[in-house]
Amino acid sequence: MAAKYVYINDTFIATDKASVLITDLAIQRGYGIFDFFKTIGGKPIFLDDHLDRFYNSARKMHLHITYTPAQLKAIIAELMEKNDLPDSGIRLTLTGGYSPDGFQLPEAHNLIITQQPFLMNLSFNNTGIKVILYDYQRQLSGMKTIDYSMAIWLQPFIRENGADDVLYHHNGQVKEVPRANFFMVNEQQEIITAKSDVLPGVIRKNLLTLENHNYKIIELDFNLQDLDHATEAFITSTTKHIMPVIQIDGRPVGDGKPGKISEALLNLLLEKVKQH
Amino acid sequence: MAAKYVYINDTFIATDKASVLITDLAIQRGYGIFDFFKTIGGKPIFLDDHLDRFYNSARKMHLHITYTPAQLKAIIAELMEKNDLPDSGIRLTLTGGYSPDGFQLPEAHNLIITQQPFLMNLSFNNTGIKVILYDYQRQLSGMKTIDYSMAIWLQPFIRENGADDVLYHHNGQVKEVPRANFFMVNEQQEIITAKSDVLPGVIRKNLLTLENHNYKIIELDFNLQDLDHATEAFITSTTKHIMPVIQIDGRPVGDGKPGKISEALLNLLLEKVKQH
Repeated sequence: MAAKYVYINDTFIATDKASVLITDLAIQRGYGIFDFFKTIGGKPIFLDDHLDRFYNSARKMHLHITYTPAQLKAIIAELMEKNDLPDSGIRLTLTGGYSPDGFQLPEAHNLIITQQPFLMNLSFNNTGIKVILYDYQRQLSGMKTIDYSMAIWLQPFIRENGADDVLYHHNGQVKEVPRANFFMVNEQQEIITAKSDVLPGVIRKNLLTLENHNYKIIELDFNLQDLDHATEAFITSTTKHIMPVIQIDGRPVGDGKPGKISEALLNLLLEKVKQH
Repeated sequence: MAAKYVYINDTFIATDKASVLITDLAIQRGYGIFDFFKTIGGKPIFLDDHLDRFYNSARKMHLHITYTPAQLKAIIAELMEKNDLPDSGIRLTLTGGYSPDGFQLPEAHNLIITQQPFLMNLSFNNTGIKVILYDYQRQLSGMKTIDYSMAIWLQPFIRENGADDVLYHHNGQVKEVPRANFFMVNEQQEIITAKSDVLPGVIRKNLLTLENHNYKIIELDFNLQDLDHATEAFITSTTKHIMPVIQIDGRPVGDGKPGKISEALLNLLLEKVKQH
Protein backbone atom coordinates (compact mmCIF):
# COMPACT_ATOMS: atom_id res chain seq x y z
CA MET A 1 0.00 0.00 0.00
CA ALA A 2 1.61 3.21 -1.14
CA ALA A 3 0.62 6.75 -0.31
CA LYS A 4 -1.84 8.40 -2.66
CA TYR A 5 0.34 11.32 -3.74
CA VAL A 6 3.94 12.06 -4.54
CA TYR A 7 5.51 15.43 -5.27
CA ILE A 8 7.65 15.86 -8.38
CA ASN A 9 9.43 19.20 -8.99
CA ASP A 10 6.44 21.50 -8.40
CA THR A 11 3.38 19.29 -8.55
CA PHE A 12 1.51 16.76 -6.45
CA ILE A 13 0.61 13.78 -8.59
CA ALA A 14 -0.95 10.35 -8.13
CA THR A 15 1.66 7.82 -7.03
CA ASP A 16 0.81 5.31 -9.78
CA LYS A 17 1.48 8.02 -12.40
CA ALA A 18 4.77 9.17 -10.87
CA SER A 19 7.46 8.79 -13.49
CA VAL A 20 10.52 10.48 -14.93
CA LEU A 21 11.70 10.54 -18.52
CA ILE A 22 14.37 8.00 -19.40
CA THR A 23 16.88 10.77 -20.17
CA ASP A 24 17.25 11.40 -16.43
CA LEU A 25 20.85 10.97 -15.28
CA ALA A 26 19.67 8.58 -12.54
CA ILE A 27 18.60 6.13 -15.25
CA GLN A 28 21.43 6.96 -17.65
CA ARG A 29 24.30 7.18 -15.15
CA GLY A 30 23.02 6.34 -11.67
CA TYR A 31 23.49 9.97 -10.57
CA GLY A 32 21.43 11.39 -7.74
CA ILE A 33 21.08 11.91 -4.00
CA PHE A 34 18.34 11.30 -1.49
CA ASP A 35 17.42 11.46 2.15
CA PHE A 36 14.85 9.59 4.18
CA PHE A 37 13.15 10.40 7.45
CA LYS A 38 10.25 8.98 9.39
CA THR A 39 7.14 10.51 10.88
CA ILE A 40 5.65 9.27 14.13
CA GLY A 41 2.10 10.30 14.91
CA GLY A 42 2.27 12.97 12.21
CA LYS A 43 5.55 14.43 13.47
CA PRO A 44 8.70 14.30 11.32
CA ILE A 45 11.62 13.00 13.40
CA PHE A 46 15.03 14.74 13.20
CA LEU A 47 13.80 16.58 10.10
CA ASP A 48 16.35 19.40 10.40
CA ASP A 49 19.20 16.88 10.52
CA HIS A 50 17.86 15.17 7.41
CA LEU A 51 17.37 18.45 5.54
CA ASP A 52 20.87 19.60 6.54
CA ARG A 53 22.31 16.40 5.11
CA PHE A 54 20.13 16.59 1.98
CA TYR A 55 21.33 20.11 1.17
CA ASN A 56 24.89 19.09 2.02
CA SER A 57 24.75 16.03 -0.26
CA ALA A 58 23.32 18.20 -3.04
CA ARG A 59 26.01 20.85 -2.73
CA LYS A 60 28.84 18.31 -2.66
CA MET A 61 27.38 16.49 -5.68
CA HIS A 62 27.10 19.76 -7.70
CA LEU A 63 23.29 19.68 -7.52
CA HIS A 64 21.06 22.66 -6.71
CA ILE A 65 17.87 22.52 -4.69
CA THR A 66 15.60 25.30 -5.92
CA TYR A 67 13.61 25.40 -2.66
CA THR A 68 14.68 26.81 0.68
CA PRO A 69 14.48 24.43 3.67
CA ALA A 70 11.38 26.31 4.82
CA GLN A 71 9.73 25.81 1.43
CA LEU A 72 10.64 22.12 1.46
CA LYS A 73 9.12 21.78 4.93
CA ALA A 74 5.90 23.39 3.70
CA ILE A 75 5.75 20.98 0.74
CA ILE A 76 6.38 18.03 3.07
CA ALA A 77 3.63 19.23 5.39
CA GLU A 78 1.21 19.54 2.47
CA LEU A 79 2.15 16.06 1.21
CA MET A 80 1.55 14.64 4.69
CA GLU A 81 -1.82 16.33 4.86
CA LYS A 82 -2.87 15.03 1.45
CA ASN A 83 -1.72 11.49 2.17
CA ASP A 84 -3.00 11.40 5.74
CA LEU A 85 -0.37 8.89 6.87
CA PRO A 86 0.75 9.90 10.36
CA ASP A 87 3.22 7.02 10.65
CA SER A 88 5.35 7.01 7.56
CA GLY A 89 8.69 7.17 5.83
CA ILE A 90 9.32 10.16 3.58
CA ARG A 91 12.00 10.11 0.92
CA LEU A 92 13.45 13.19 -0.77
CA THR A 93 15.26 12.30 -4.00
CA LEU A 94 17.14 14.68 -6.26
CA THR A 95 18.20 13.06 -9.52
CA GLY A 96 20.75 14.48 -11.94
CA GLY A 97 17.93 15.57 -14.25
CA TYR A 98 17.36 15.41 -17.98
CA SER A 99 20.69 15.38 -19.79
CA PRO A 100 20.51 16.02 -23.55
CA ASP A 101 23.59 13.84 -24.19
CA GLY A 102 23.06 11.41 -21.31
CA PHE A 103 26.32 12.42 -19.65
CA GLN A 104 26.69 16.14 -18.96
CA LEU A 105 25.13 17.20 -15.69
CA PRO A 106 22.26 19.56 -16.57
CA GLU A 107 21.36 22.74 -14.67
CA ALA A 108 17.86 21.51 -13.77
CA HIS A 109 17.40 18.40 -11.67
CA ASN A 110 14.36 16.35 -10.68
CA LEU A 111 13.08 16.57 -7.12
CA ILE A 112 10.89 13.66 -6.06
CA ILE A 113 9.21 13.42 -2.65
CA THR A 114 7.50 10.16 -1.79
CA GLN A 115 5.75 8.92 1.30
CA GLN A 116 4.97 5.40 2.39
CA PRO A 117 3.28 3.93 5.44
CA PHE A 118 5.82 2.95 8.08
CA LEU A 119 5.18 2.21 11.73
CA MET A 120 8.33 2.67 13.80
CA ASN A 121 8.94 -0.04 16.37
CA LEU A 122 10.09 1.75 19.49
CA SER A 123 10.94 -1.28 21.59
CA PHE A 124 14.36 -2.89 21.84
CA ASN A 125 14.86 -5.75 19.41
CA ASN A 126 15.67 -8.82 21.50
CA THR A 127 16.55 -10.99 18.51
CA GLY A 128 19.18 -8.95 16.71
CA ILE A 129 20.65 -9.60 13.28
CA LYS A 130 23.54 -11.53 11.75
CA VAL A 131 25.94 -9.82 9.38
CA ILE A 132 28.55 -11.11 6.96
CA LEU A 133 31.77 -9.25 6.20
CA TYR A 134 32.60 -7.92 2.73
CA ASP A 135 35.59 -5.89 1.57
CA TYR A 136 34.23 -2.67 0.08
CA GLN A 137 34.61 1.07 0.41
CA ARG A 138 31.56 3.10 -0.65
CA GLN A 139 32.49 5.71 -3.24
CA LEU A 140 31.67 9.38 -2.51
CA SER A 141 30.96 8.11 0.99
CA GLY A 142 30.24 11.44 2.69
CA MET A 143 27.21 12.11 0.50
CA LYS A 144 23.95 10.17 0.55
CA THR A 145 23.94 9.26 -3.14
CA ILE A 146 21.50 6.81 -4.72
CA ASP A 147 24.40 4.46 -5.49
CA TYR A 148 23.63 1.17 -3.77
CA SER A 149 24.88 -1.01 -6.66
CA MET A 150 27.06 -3.08 -4.36
CA ALA A 151 24.34 -3.53 -1.74
CA ILE A 152 21.79 -4.72 -4.33
CA TRP A 153 24.39 -6.90 -6.01
CA LEU A 154 25.26 -8.57 -2.69
CA GLN A 155 21.66 -9.60 -1.90
CA PRO A 156 22.19 -13.22 -3.07
CA PHE A 157 25.56 -13.36 -1.23
CA ILE A 158 23.86 -12.28 2.01
CA ARG A 159 21.06 -14.84 1.58
CA GLU A 160 23.46 -17.66 0.71
CA ASN A 161 25.44 -16.96 3.87
CA GLY A 162 22.33 -17.02 6.04
CA ALA A 163 22.94 -13.41 7.07
CA ASP A 164 20.59 -10.47 7.39
CA ASP A 165 22.97 -7.81 6.14
CA VAL A 166 26.54 -7.15 5.08
CA LEU A 167 29.19 -5.26 7.04
CA TYR A 168 31.68 -3.44 4.83
CA HIS A 169 35.35 -3.26 5.73
CA HIS A 170 38.26 -1.95 3.67
CA ASN A 171 42.02 -2.00 4.17
CA GLY A 172 41.33 -3.80 7.43
CA GLN A 173 39.11 -1.00 8.75
CA VAL A 174 35.50 -1.62 9.70
CA LYS A 175 33.10 0.76 7.90
CA GLU A 176 29.30 0.47 7.81
CA VAL A 177 26.41 -1.61 6.55
CA PRO A 178 24.69 -0.52 3.31
CA ARG A 179 21.80 1.37 4.92
CA ALA A 180 23.04 1.85 8.48
CA ASN A 181 26.06 2.86 10.53
CA PHE A 182 27.82 0.29 12.65
CA PHE A 183 28.86 0.60 16.30
CA MET A 184 30.81 -1.74 18.56
CA VAL A 185 31.34 -1.72 22.31
CA ASN A 186 34.90 -2.55 23.31
CA GLU A 187 36.24 -4.18 26.48
CA GLN A 188 36.65 -0.72 28.06
CA GLN A 189 32.90 -0.21 27.47
CA GLU A 190 33.64 2.52 24.95
CA ILE A 191 31.03 2.75 22.20
CA ILE A 192 32.81 3.40 18.91
CA THR A 193 31.78 3.96 15.31
CA ALA A 194 34.03 4.40 12.27
CA LYS A 195 35.18 7.99 11.82
CA SER A 196 36.39 7.97 8.19
CA ASP A 197 34.68 7.44 4.87
CA VAL A 198 31.25 6.46 6.12
CA LEU A 199 27.83 8.01 5.66
CA PRO A 200 27.10 10.70 8.27
CA GLY A 201 23.99 8.97 9.60
CA VAL A 202 21.37 10.97 11.46
CA ILE A 203 20.86 8.41 14.24
CA ARG A 204 24.68 8.08 14.44
CA LYS A 205 24.92 11.86 14.91
CA ASN A 206 22.19 11.89 17.52
CA LEU A 207 23.92 9.11 19.47
CA LEU A 208 27.29 10.91 19.32
CA THR A 209 25.64 14.07 20.69
CA LEU A 210 23.55 12.41 23.43
CA GLU A 211 23.66 14.30 26.70
CA ASN A 212 23.20 13.40 30.36
CA HIS A 213 24.75 9.96 30.46
CA ASN A 214 28.00 8.33 31.54
CA TYR A 215 28.85 6.46 28.35
CA LYS A 216 31.79 7.28 26.16
CA ILE A 217 30.39 7.37 22.61
CA ILE A 218 33.05 8.28 20.06
CA GLU A 219 34.00 8.34 16.39
CA LEU A 220 37.15 6.27 16.05
CA ASP A 221 38.45 4.17 13.19
CA PHE A 222 38.84 0.53 14.25
CA ASN A 223 39.85 -2.63 12.52
CA LEU A 224 38.75 -6.24 12.18
CA GLN A 225 40.98 -7.30 15.10
CA ASP A 226 39.26 -4.75 17.34
CA LEU A 227 35.95 -6.12 16.14
CA ASP A 228 36.96 -9.61 17.34
CA HIS A 229 37.02 -8.21 20.88
CA ALA A 230 33.66 -6.45 20.72
CA THR A 231 31.42 -7.17 23.70
CA GLU A 232 28.37 -5.77 21.88
CA ALA A 233 27.61 -4.45 18.43
CA PHE A 234 24.67 -2.71 16.81
CA ILE A 235 23.66 -0.79 13.71
CA THR A 236 21.85 2.53 13.64
CA SER A 237 19.43 3.86 11.04
CA THR A 238 16.27 5.91 10.69
CA THR A 239 14.06 2.84 10.42
CA LYS A 240 15.87 0.74 13.04
CA HIS A 241 17.14 3.25 15.61
CA ILE A 242 19.44 0.70 17.34
CA MET A 243 19.43 -2.88 16.08
CA PRO A 244 21.71 -5.34 17.91
CA VAL A 245 24.18 -7.35 15.85
CA ILE A 246 24.58 -10.75 17.48
CA GLN A 247 26.75 -12.53 14.93
CA ILE A 248 29.49 -11.44 12.51
CA ASP A 249 30.71 -13.88 9.86
CA GLY A 250 29.23 -16.78 11.82
CA ARG A 251 30.93 -15.85 15.11
CA PRO A 252 28.89 -14.58 18.07
CA VAL A 253 29.45 -11.01 19.24
CA GLY A 254 30.12 -11.13 23.01
CA ASP A 255 27.73 -13.71 24.45
CA GLY A 256 25.78 -13.76 21.19
CA LYS A 257 22.79 -11.90 22.62
CA PRO A 258 21.56 -8.30 22.24
CA GLY A 259 23.56 -6.23 24.70
CA LYS A 260 22.67 -4.24 27.79
CA ILE A 261 24.54 -1.12 26.67
CA SER A 262 22.79 -1.25 23.28
CA GLU A 263 19.44 -1.33 25.10
CA ALA A 264 20.40 1.52 27.44
CA LEU A 265 21.47 3.63 24.44
CA LEU A 266 18.16 2.99 22.70
CA ASN A 267 16.33 4.25 25.78
CA LEU A 268 18.44 7.41 25.82
CA LEU A 269 17.82 7.88 22.10
CA LEU A 270 14.07 7.38 22.51
CA GLU A 271 14.00 10.22 25.04
CA LYS A 272 15.48 12.45 22.35
CA VAL A 273 12.99 11.18 19.76
CA LYS A 274 10.08 11.90 22.10
CA GLN A 275 11.31 15.36 23.06
CA HIS A 276 11.79 16.15 19.42
CA MET B 1 17.33 15.98 -32.29
CA ALA B 2 16.38 12.61 -30.89
CA ALA B 3 15.01 9.61 -32.72
CA LYS B 4 11.23 9.39 -32.99
CA TYR B 5 10.76 6.09 -31.20
CA VAL B 6 12.17 4.18 -28.28
CA TYR B 7 11.38 0.65 -27.23
CA ILE B 8 10.42 -0.05 -23.61
CA ASN B 9 9.89 -3.66 -22.48
CA ASP B 10 7.58 -4.75 -25.32
CA THR B 11 6.36 -1.57 -26.97
CA PHE B 12 7.58 1.12 -29.34
CA ILE B 13 6.67 4.51 -27.96
CA ALA B 14 7.29 8.14 -28.84
CA THR B 15 10.61 9.33 -27.40
CA ASP B 16 9.13 12.35 -25.63
CA LYS B 17 6.74 10.03 -23.76
CA ALA B 18 9.41 7.52 -22.76
CA SER B 19 9.44 7.26 -18.99
CA VAL B 20 9.72 4.81 -16.14
CA LEU B 21 7.97 4.89 -12.79
CA ILE B 22 9.98 6.35 -9.93
CA THR B 23 9.98 3.00 -8.09
CA ASP B 24 12.55 1.70 -10.60
CA LEU B 25 15.76 0.57 -8.86
CA ALA B 26 17.78 2.76 -11.25
CA ILE B 27 16.16 5.82 -9.68
CA GLN B 28 15.98 4.39 -6.16
CA ARG B 29 19.41 2.73 -6.00
CA GLY B 30 21.32 3.42 -9.21
CA TYR B 31 21.00 -0.24 -10.24
CA GLY B 32 21.11 -1.25 -13.89
CA ILE B 33 23.27 -2.18 -16.86
CA PHE B 34 23.52 -0.98 -20.43
CA ASP B 35 25.39 -1.34 -23.66
CA PHE B 36 25.88 1.01 -26.57
CA PHE B 37 26.77 0.38 -30.19
CA LYS B 38 26.82 2.47 -33.32
CA THR B 39 25.34 1.98 -36.77
CA ILE B 40 27.11 3.16 -39.90
CA GLY B 41 25.05 3.41 -43.05
CA GLY B 42 22.30 1.35 -41.45
CA LYS B 43 24.66 -1.41 -40.32
CA PRO B 44 25.21 -2.13 -36.61
CA ILE B 45 28.93 -2.37 -35.86
CA PHE B 46 30.27 -5.19 -33.67
CA LEU B 47 26.70 -5.94 -32.61
CA ASP B 48 27.45 -9.51 -31.50
CA ASP B 49 30.24 -8.30 -29.23
CA HIS B 50 27.91 -5.73 -27.69
CA LEU B 51 25.10 -8.24 -27.20
CA ASP B 52 27.53 -10.77 -25.68
CA ARG B 53 28.63 -8.15 -23.20
CA PHE B 54 25.05 -7.02 -22.49
CA TYR B 55 23.95 -10.57 -21.64
CA ASN B 56 27.11 -11.09 -19.64
CA SER B 57 26.62 -7.88 -17.64
CA ALA B 58 23.01 -8.89 -17.00
CA ARG B 59 23.91 -12.38 -15.78
CA LYS B 60 26.65 -11.13 -13.47
CA MET B 61 24.36 -8.43 -12.06
CA HIS B 62 21.58 -10.99 -11.34
CA LEU B 63 19.35 -9.52 -14.06
CA HIS B 64 17.41 -11.54 -16.63
CA ILE B 65 16.86 -10.55 -20.25
CA THR B 66 13.57 -12.05 -21.37
CA TYR B 67 14.52 -11.91 -25.06
CA THR B 68 16.97 -14.12 -26.92
CA PRO B 69 19.76 -12.35 -28.79
CA ALA B 70 17.91 -13.09 -32.07
CA GLN B 71 14.75 -11.48 -30.71
CA LEU B 72 16.73 -8.46 -29.51
CA LYS B 73 18.28 -8.14 -32.96
CA ALA B 74 14.83 -8.20 -34.57
CA ILE B 75 13.60 -5.48 -32.19
CA ILE B 76 16.69 -3.39 -32.93
CA ALA B 77 16.12 -3.82 -36.69
CA GLU B 78 12.50 -2.73 -36.31
CA LEU B 79 13.51 0.29 -34.22
CA MET B 80 16.07 1.27 -36.87
CA GLU B 81 13.44 0.95 -39.59
CA LYS B 82 10.93 3.08 -37.68
CA ASN B 83 13.47 5.78 -36.84
CA ASP B 84 15.16 5.77 -40.22
CA LEU B 85 18.51 6.90 -38.81
CA PRO B 86 21.24 5.02 -40.71
CA ASP B 87 24.05 6.68 -38.74
CA SER B 88 23.27 6.38 -35.08
CA GLY B 89 24.10 5.24 -31.60
CA ILE B 90 21.81 2.65 -30.04
CA ARG B 91 21.68 2.10 -26.32
CA LEU B 92 20.27 -0.97 -24.60
CA THR B 93 19.51 -0.34 -20.93
CA LEU B 94 18.23 -2.86 -18.40
CA THR B 95 17.28 -1.26 -15.11
CA GLY B 96 16.68 -3.13 -11.87
CA GLY B 97 12.93 -2.72 -12.33
CA TYR B 98 10.07 -1.76 -10.05
CA SER B 99 10.90 -2.71 -6.48
CA PRO B 100 7.96 -2.62 -4.03
CA ASP B 101 10.25 -1.68 -1.12
CA GLY B 102 12.82 0.30 -3.14
CA PHE B 103 15.62 -2.10 -2.25
CA GLN B 104 14.93 -5.76 -3.06
CA LEU B 105 15.83 -6.66 -6.63
CA PRO B 106 12.54 -7.61 -8.34
CA GLU B 107 12.10 -10.47 -10.82
CA ALA B 108 10.98 -8.20 -13.67
CA HIS B 109 13.31 -5.51 -14.98
CA ASN B 110 12.85 -2.66 -17.44
CA LEU B 111 14.41 -2.95 -20.88
CA ILE B 112 14.85 0.38 -22.68
CA ILE B 113 16.24 0.68 -26.21
CA THR B 114 16.98 4.17 -27.48
CA GLN B 115 18.49 5.47 -30.69
CA GLN B 116 20.07 8.81 -31.41
CA PRO B 117 21.66 10.35 -34.51
CA PHE B 118 25.42 9.84 -34.48
CA LEU B 119 27.82 10.18 -37.41
CA MET B 120 31.03 8.25 -36.79
CA ASN B 121 34.17 10.10 -37.74
CA LEU B 122 36.37 7.53 -39.48
CA SER B 123 39.48 9.66 -39.90
CA PHE B 124 42.38 9.83 -37.48
CA ASN B 125 42.09 12.63 -34.95
CA ASN B 126 45.17 14.81 -35.38
CA THR B 127 44.47 16.93 -32.32
CA GLY B 128 44.11 14.38 -29.55
CA ILE B 129 42.92 14.95 -26.01
CA LYS B 130 44.37 15.86 -22.63
CA VAL B 131 43.62 13.80 -19.57
CA ILE B 132 44.05 14.40 -15.89
CA LEU B 133 44.85 11.60 -13.41
CA TYR B 134 42.50 10.63 -10.58
CA ASP B 135 42.80 7.83 -8.02
CA TYR B 136 39.73 5.64 -8.41
CA GLN B 137 38.80 2.02 -8.98
CA ARG B 138 35.41 1.47 -10.65
CA GLN B 139 33.25 -0.87 -8.59
CA LEU B 140 31.86 -4.02 -10.26
CA SER B 141 34.29 -3.16 -13.02
CA GLY B 142 33.78 -6.20 -15.25
CA MET B 143 30.14 -5.34 -15.89
CA LYS B 144 28.85 -2.36 -17.85
CA THR B 145 26.66 -0.93 -15.09
CA ILE B 146 24.96 2.46 -15.25
CA ASP B 147 27.12 3.66 -12.35
CA TYR B 148 29.05 6.69 -13.57
CA SER B 149 28.65 8.65 -10.33
CA MET B 150 32.36 9.38 -10.14
CA ALA B 151 32.62 10.39 -13.79
CA ILE B 152 29.71 12.85 -13.51
CA TRP B 153 30.98 14.12 -10.19
CA LEU B 154 34.43 14.79 -11.69
CA GLN B 155 33.11 16.97 -14.56
CA PRO B 156 33.98 20.27 -12.79
CA PHE B 157 37.40 18.84 -11.76
CA ILE B 158 38.17 17.97 -15.39
CA ARG B 159 37.08 21.42 -16.60
CA GLU B 160 39.02 23.24 -13.87
CA ASN B 161 42.18 21.37 -14.88
CA GLY B 162 41.75 22.24 -18.55
CA ALA B 163 41.51 18.55 -19.43
CA ASP B 164 39.15 16.68 -21.75
CA ASP B 165 38.79 13.57 -19.65
CA VAL B 166 40.03 11.81 -16.54
CA LEU B 167 42.34 8.79 -16.40
CA TYR B 168 41.69 6.54 -13.41
CA HIS B 169 44.53 4.85 -11.56
CA HIS B 170 44.43 2.90 -8.31
CA ASN B 171 47.13 1.46 -6.07
CA GLY B 172 49.61 2.87 -8.56
CA GLN B 173 48.10 0.91 -11.48
CA VAL B 174 46.73 2.69 -14.54
CA LYS B 175 43.13 1.68 -15.27
CA GLU B 176 40.80 3.37 -17.78
CA VAL B 177 38.90 6.57 -18.55
CA PRO B 178 35.20 6.71 -17.60
CA ARG B 179 33.81 5.81 -21.02
CA ALA B 180 36.84 4.35 -22.79
CA ASN B 181 39.76 1.99 -22.32
CA PHE B 182 43.28 3.33 -22.19
CA PHE B 183 46.31 2.10 -24.12
CA MET B 184 49.97 3.15 -24.01
CA VAL B 185 52.87 2.35 -26.32
CA ASN B 186 56.08 1.61 -24.43
CA GLU B 187 59.71 2.11 -25.51
CA GLN B 188 59.76 -1.46 -26.91
CA GLN B 189 56.84 -0.44 -29.14
CA GLU B 190 54.54 -2.81 -27.27
CA ILE B 191 50.93 -1.61 -27.15
CA ILE B 192 49.53 -2.35 -23.72
CA THR B 193 46.22 -1.92 -21.97
CA ALA B 194 45.35 -2.68 -18.33
CA LYS B 195 44.43 -6.32 -17.79
CA SER B 196 42.69 -6.18 -14.38
CA ASP B 197 39.53 -4.54 -13.10
CA VAL B 198 38.62 -2.55 -16.20
CA LEU B 199 35.59 -2.62 -18.46
CA PRO B 200 35.93 -5.22 -21.24
CA GLY B 201 35.56 -2.70 -24.05
CA VAL B 202 34.46 -3.84 -27.48
CA ILE B 203 37.00 -1.75 -29.38
CA ARG B 204 39.63 -2.90 -26.85
CA LYS B 205 38.70 -6.51 -27.61
CA ASN B 206 38.79 -5.93 -31.37
CA LEU B 207 42.23 -4.35 -31.11
CA LEU B 208 43.56 -7.21 -28.98
CA THR B 209 42.31 -9.71 -31.58
CA LEU B 210 43.50 -7.84 -34.68
CA GLU B 211 45.13 -10.12 -37.24
CA ASN B 212 47.70 -9.71 -40.01
CA HIS B 213 50.01 -7.16 -38.47
CA ASN B 214 53.39 -7.06 -36.75
CA TYR B 215 52.41 -5.16 -33.60
CA LYS B 216 52.44 -6.65 -30.16
CA ILE B 217 49.09 -5.66 -28.62
CA ILE B 218 48.65 -7.07 -25.13
CA GLU B 219 46.71 -6.91 -21.90
CA LEU B 220 49.18 -6.13 -19.15
CA ASP B 221 48.82 -4.26 -15.90
CA PHE B 222 51.15 -1.26 -15.80
CA ASN B 223 51.76 1.54 -13.36
CA LEU B 224 52.20 5.30 -13.31
CA GLN B 225 55.99 4.98 -13.69
CA ASP B 226 55.51 2.94 -16.87
CA LEU B 227 53.14 5.62 -18.07
CA ASP B 228 55.88 8.25 -17.67
CA HIS B 229 57.83 6.40 -20.35
CA ALA B 230 54.97 6.07 -22.85
CA THR B 231 55.90 7.10 -26.40
CA GLU B 232 52.23 7.23 -27.42
CA ALA B 233 48.88 6.84 -25.70
CA PHE B 234 45.27 6.60 -26.84
CA ILE B 235 41.81 5.71 -25.63
CA THR B 236 39.38 3.35 -27.35
CA SER B 237 35.60 3.46 -27.39
CA THR B 238 32.64 2.80 -29.64
CA THR B 239 32.21 6.48 -30.48
CA LYS B 240 35.92 7.32 -30.76
CA HIS B 241 37.55 4.15 -32.10
CA ILE B 242 41.10 5.35 -31.37
CA MET B 243 41.58 8.83 -29.89
CA PRO B 244 45.16 9.96 -29.25
CA VAL B 245 46.04 11.18 -25.76
CA ILE B 246 48.69 13.89 -26.09
CA GLN B 247 48.94 15.10 -22.52
CA ILE B 248 48.59 13.46 -19.09
CA ASP B 249 48.44 15.66 -15.97
CA GLY B 250 49.93 18.55 -17.94
CA ARG B 251 52.91 16.54 -19.24
CA PRO B 252 53.19 15.68 -22.94
CA VAL B 253 53.02 12.02 -23.98
CA GLY B 254 56.09 11.29 -26.17
CA ASP B 255 56.54 14.31 -28.41
CA GLY B 256 53.12 15.61 -27.44
CA LYS B 257 51.54 14.80 -30.81
CA PRO B 258 49.16 12.03 -31.93
CA GLY B 259 51.34 8.99 -32.63
CA LYS B 260 52.17 7.02 -35.77
CA ILE B 261 51.39 3.64 -34.18
CA SER B 262 48.04 4.95 -32.97
CA GLU B 263 47.22 5.99 -36.53
CA ALA B 264 48.35 2.66 -37.98
CA LEU B 265 46.19 0.80 -35.48
CA LEU B 266 43.18 2.90 -36.41
CA ASN B 267 43.65 1.95 -40.04
CA LEU B 268 43.83 -1.74 -39.12
CA LEU B 269 40.72 -1.36 -36.98
CA LEU B 270 38.84 0.42 -39.76
CA GLU B 271 39.47 -2.55 -42.05
CA LYS B 272 37.72 -4.71 -39.49
CA VAL B 273 34.86 -2.20 -39.15
CA LYS B 274 34.39 -2.13 -42.93
CA GLN B 275 34.53 -5.91 -43.31
CA HIS B 276 32.04 -6.24 -40.52
